[in-house]
Amino acid sequence: MSIVVIYGSTRQNGNTERLTKRVIEGLEVEEIFLRDYDIQPIDDRRHSEGGFSDVDDDYNDLITRMMKHDTFIFATPIYWYSMTGTMKNFIDRWSHTMRDEKFPNFKAELGTKKAYVVAVGGDRPHIKGLPLIQQFNYIFEFMSISFEGYAIGKASRPGDITQDTTAFLAATALNEKLKGSQ
Amino acid sequence: MSIVVIYGSTRQNGNTERLTKRVIEGLEVEEIFLRDYDIQPIDDRRHSEGGFSDVDDDYNDLITRMMKHDTFIFATPIYWYSMTGTMKNFIDRWSHTMRDEKFPNFKAELGTKKAYVVAVGGDRPHIKGLPLIQQFNYIFEFMSISFEGYAIGKASRPGDITQDTTAFLAATALNEKLKGSQ
Amino acid sequence: MSIVVIYGSTRQNGNTERLTKRVIEGLEVEEIFLRDYDIQPIDDRRHSEGGFSDVDDDYNDLITRMMKHDTFIFATPIYWYSMTGTMKNFIDRWSHTMRDEKFPNFKAELGTKKAYVVAVGGDRPHIKGLPLIQQFNYIFEFMSISFEGYAIGKASRPGDITQDTTAFLAATALNEKLKGSQ
Amino acid sequence: MSIVVIYGSTRQNGNTERLTKRVIEGLEVEEIFLRDYDIQPIDDRRHSEGGFSDVDDDYNDLITRMMKHDTFIFATPIYWYSMTGTMKNFIDRWSHTMRDEKFPNFKAELGTKKAYVVAVGGDRPHIKGLPLIQQFNYIFEFMSISFEGYAIGKASRPGDITQDTTAFLAATALNEKLKGSQ
Repeated sequence: MSIVVIYGSTRQNGNTERLTKRVIEGLEVEEIFLRDYDIQPIDDRRHSEGGFSDVDDDYNDLITRMMKHDTFIFATPIYWYSMTGTMKNFIDRWSHTMRDEKFPNFKAELGTKKAYVVAVGGDRPHIKGLPLIQQFNYIFEFMSISFEGYAIGKASRPGDITQDTTAFLAATALNEKLKGSQ
Repeated sequence: MSIVVIYGSTRQNGNTERLTKRVIEGLEVEEIFLRDYDIQPIDDRRHSEGGFSDVDDDYNDLITRMMKHDTFIFATPIYWYSMTGTMKNFIDRWSHTMRDEKFPNFKAELGTKKAYVVAVGGDRPHIKGLPLIQQFNYIFEFMSISFEGYAIGKASRPGDITQDTTAFLAATALNEKLKGSQ
Repeated sequence: MSIVVIYGSTRQNGNTERLTKRVIEGLEVEEIFLRDYDIQPIDDRRHSEGGFSDVDDDYNDLITRMMKHDTFIFATPIYWYSMTGTMKNFIDRWSHTMRDEKFPNFKAELGTKKAYVVAVGGDRPHIKGLPLIQQFNYIFEFMSISFEGYAIGKASRPGDITQDTTAFLAATALNEKLKGSQ
Repeated sequence: MSIVVIYGSTRQNGNTERLTKRVIEGLEVEEIFLRDYDIQPIDDRRHSEGGFSDVDDDYNDLITRMMKHDTFIFATPIYWYSMTGTMKNFIDRWSHTMRDEKFPNFKAELGTKKAYVVAVGGDRPHIKGLPLIQQFNYIFEFMSISFEGYAIGKASRPGDITQDTTAFLAATALNEKLKGSQ
């Protein structure tokens, strides 16, 4: 098993990262911090003559790095009850990659992957974060990615997350599952 | 009553725009196409010394235009079961505006506004678009914006939306409501 | 096409019935008012020696009547954000019927059926009724029933429903769809 | 603190009970097994002349027992993606109790209570059980009951639940929270 963590945070060492550290404790992982890269919003050309054009940014490199792994962890703060715009732009671009001859087996390969979600928010995330979990589930179902589990944490101010016992035990459960499948 | 439509689409004259045209038929509205502007992702500095810094893009102008109206229509294609990254980045930035001394009454003023949502997707949107509606509801509740109604449409290829009778009748209901409150 | 309406209401001529009348206007349907029958809660014996035993109530007759039709309309007031206990007991019993030799093809036959949902509630049903719609969707998916559409109405006091334009237009859309598929 | 567990199961010693035992380990609780009592479906007479009439069953005794405690644990198997019909009938009756002069302070007293939910299902409950959690949240919000936490477990055959590590750690988190608030 080989694991990549995709971080959607815009802040360094935030609560989402801290909770994710518990999920990946003792495991070797590659970490991608989306905020460090230029990722343009998709220009939807599915139905345009000529289709999609190449985009001159970092997205293709990131996808190439992600696809080398068989287990994905999507770690995002909950901004306005869903994933950050940064992570959303990254995922929106998958619609292009699915039609990009440089990635001819993108969807088929995704169908062999496993995914986890870590999401941390300040406003009752154990309830108001559930639509986000449902959306990740739909994304994974569409791509036939196996949704292995999620951990939701509650935190607003830096460090808050350490007080969410439920979140840490959920992260522990994911950690055990990840270790068990190595 | 004064209406602004915020479009999250990346395509011109797409299905989302067509369905929205039915919602605003016979009404005077201002239209903002987010794709025509530069909107940077938020850099979350809520907890940083010094707080947020000014961002050199089009966002503040757009917020100023939006806030002149009392009724907002958020019109977005459903990308990967939620709003487009373009629209998400726009909304994520509200966290900055709430702390921006250039907009001292942002949240209080939002509390006097009404909002509608138009969302169009290809993959069973009348079911799989519901988490998106729930998220808009949470956003509006947080800001005390009154959520007046929504229309969900099903469409993939250009023009498909004309075949979704349910969507057009839902759009008609919103149109009548908008006209009734003028 | 042959249509059966399953009513979960406990009140006669209530808002749910009125909205449903719009859905079935001009169509021949069989109506089953669950409140008129004795339907015991399920006694879950899936894992007991001997399995399920026959229950002496009206349930089997109702299922037999329902299965003669190819299109089902589940019409329920929203009690506490979900279907009524009366309707829930009726559906819970399906777990028995799936294992009842008197109905050997129950699940296979359900897989050829179409279903609609009409749900009316008083407390922001267009938002707070969405989990109920998602649950019906899961039920129908499990049984391979095709979920053709739904109408949500807002009403508390008798007659209120006539003021929910959105609901009536949604009901009209269902009515047109039902007529179109005859 | 004084705790009551309301069980919606129809089976004895099932997976829901086993997971709940972990939640209440080391705590003194009163347990109510709804299946052992006669609870009639509500007859909605909110808008009838004369209003509700007394019902000759066990419901009022159960409510009286429940209201003596300040912390409620609702423990239900997930039948068809929501609570059991048995538990639903019990909750539906609250609409009567809210208008019953024998319980003049029912809603006000509920507003001082805390609640937990334990739900166990066989078909991807960590995803498909989320609408049920959202519904409990709406119920508790309506009554101003404080929703303190939930544990979802996956199990079909007797004993399965012991293999859901995530569920047991979630139950452990609830147990610690309950002990901490004594």
